[in-house]
Amino acid sequence: MAHIELDALHELASSALVAAGANPDMARATANALVYADAQGLASHGVSRVPSYATHLRNGRAVGSAQPRVARERGGAALVDAGAGLAFPACELAIKQAIDRARAHGVAFIGVTNSHHFGVAAYHLESIARAGMVGLAVGNSPAAMPAWGGKRALFGTNPIAAAFPRRDQAPVVIDLSLSEVARGKLMTAARDNKPIPLGWALDAEGNPTTDPKAGLTGSMLPMGGVKGAMLAIIVELLACALTGAHFGFEADSFFTEQGNQARIGQAFLAIDPEALAGREVYLDRVETLISAMLVDEGVRVPGERRQRLQEQAHRQGLEIPDGVLAQLRELADKG
Amino acid sequence: MAHIELDALHELASSALVAAGANPDMARATANALVYADAQGLASHGVSRVPSYATHLRNGRAVGSAQPRVARERGGAALVDAGAGLAFPACELAIKQAIDRARAHGVAFIGVTNSHHFGVAAYHLESIARAGMVGLAVGNSPAAMPAWGGKRALFGTNPIAAAFPRRDQAPVVIDLSLSEVARGKLMTAARDNKPIPLGWALDAEGNPTTDPKAGLTGSMLPMGGVKGAMLAIIVELLACALTGAHFGFEADSFFTEQGNQARIGQAFLAIDPEALAGREVYLDRVETLISAMLVDEGVRVPGERRQRLQEQAHRQGLEIPDGVLAQLRELADKG
Repeated sequence: MAHIELDALHELASSALVAAGANPDMARATANALVYADAQGLASHGVSRVPSYATHLRNGRAVGSAQPRVARERGGAALVDAGAGLAFPACELAIKQAIDRARAHGVAFIGVTNSHHFGVAAYHLESIARAGMVGLAVGNSPAAMPAWGGKRALFGTNPIAAAFPRRDQAPVVIDLSLSEVARGKLMTAARDNKPIPLGWALDAEGNPTTDPKAGLTGSMLPMGGVKGAMLAIIVELLACALTGAHFGFEADSFFTEQGNQARIGQAFLAIDPEALAGREVYLDRVETLISAMLVDEGVRVPGERRQRLQEQAHRQGLEIPDGVLAQLRELADKG
Repeated sequence: MAHIELDALHELASSALVAAGANPDMARATANALVYADAQGLASHGVSRVPSYATHLRNGRAVGSAQPRVARERGGAALVDAGAGLAFPACELAIKQAIDRARAHGVAFIGVTNSHHFGVAAYHLESIARAGMVGLAVGNSPAAMPAWGGKRALFGTNPIAAAFPRRDQAPVVIDLSLSEVARGKLMTAARDNKPIPLGWALDAEGNPTTDPKAGLTGSMLPMGGVKGAMLAIIVELLACALTGAHFGFEADSFFTEQGNQARIGQAFLAIDPEALAGREVYLDRVETLISAMLVDEGVRVPGERRQRLQEQAHRQGLEIPDGVLAQLRELADKG
């Protein structure tokens, strides 16, 4: 592990992306999101993704020259076209649109089409919460989970995130994916030669399995069984049918070099509490719920741990694996 | 069981509610929703609820004279005040508002406050789907599930529903509650003296239990563990913080005669596909996903079974338990 300040890490990630063909705005927006993830302790969605993004930029799976634009709009709704670039500048535009349109119309729903991996879903909601609004985000991802009763992966693990601003405090932030567990847990079990519980994965033939290696060649099961599978359909249809984006089963994995342009979708909802019960009523209610939750020891406010890590990273910088930093430097030097 | 046509069942339920003090519009809107539930095979949310609604109307837990009204609004957002009446006329007004405002602004988010049990969540979305729009519904309910890590019930089982219109066919309809199982499964296990799996319920002290009787005095666990608990927070905050309604832990059970006015909350989202990728793109995408799902035998289109039962009930009428019909007749005769 090597110590690095956030600004330096941002600069390094950004340079590596520019060297791979990202335009400066795409590189900046992407580095913002990745450094945020590392700062919040979410290394799997942090700068460790840069090499794979760079590969996609180099082989045409992501278009470095893409400029996101508002393709359609009416009132509180708009569709942003990411132009098959990396997702982050398009999501940034979508969030700006969401805040402005929710301010004017009370609520905004902004879709993003022709998009790519959007990283930590909750990241995009930070500025909605800072604007005093409630934010929701959904996105699909390359196929990983079957439909309920099915045998082949069709839906992504399809994250759902929400941010609820609080009075004078960091927002409540919720961020979850719809698989019962992350693939990482299967990889760990496979390495340790340990069985996995039924309900985590299907094998390549679509049969329930306790063998993590068989699960890795098959598909992940949704959290909460049929209910999670139903939520996955909701996310696919919100993020893709409304936006014209690719479904999970139409997008090749982000973890391979070769493949198509994923062209997946995202959607963001922003709601201005002032347009409903009013800002003060809203803020009072949030504190009432949190106080009731915290009566039981062992209950935490969602997002608190990430927030604490982030504040610490801003003060003290981060520890990043030497190998990751070396890769970033090598990529940046190619430019 | 006794056979009855839908119109006759509606008339009977409506008369029973009017006799208990509901105004004619409240009785009509409520009977619409309850008969719909019975027609879709959801008897637990059908006319079997009338005796409990009638008790609430008689003892002041629901206000029969209440007239829902739009209390606040801006653009695509509005807050409907149910005035502590039964939920259905307020939800009807909210849905009208949602359709009109989504037509004008592309998207609408309508909250309902000071509300009561809103029955089958997906029911309210039928007319949004008929208007060619995507609908989402959430609502909270009296406390049944603990916060993650907590020992006492705080959140309701908090349904989430969605309806996605299709081309020339009934919409995709998804409707789920956030508990791992319904309380009914504990009641059945208790009756049969069978243990329940860990993960279904906590006992009254907040400890995991395999004893269904202990679970019935304790709380229900969320589906998907911590992820379901996080979704329950999202629903509580959308349905209550934005609307000023009571949280689950502030509302007394609907299954007891005595208690407070629940004054819980609901929220509805309507999105006009035409304001995003466009209606034809949306409809094409929906059919593409459904075709892919149906390649695997054993996969069903969500909502199809309910829809089939409903069509059958419209043609053939329904079988309703004699006891329920006798109760409704007795209540109607009191008027």
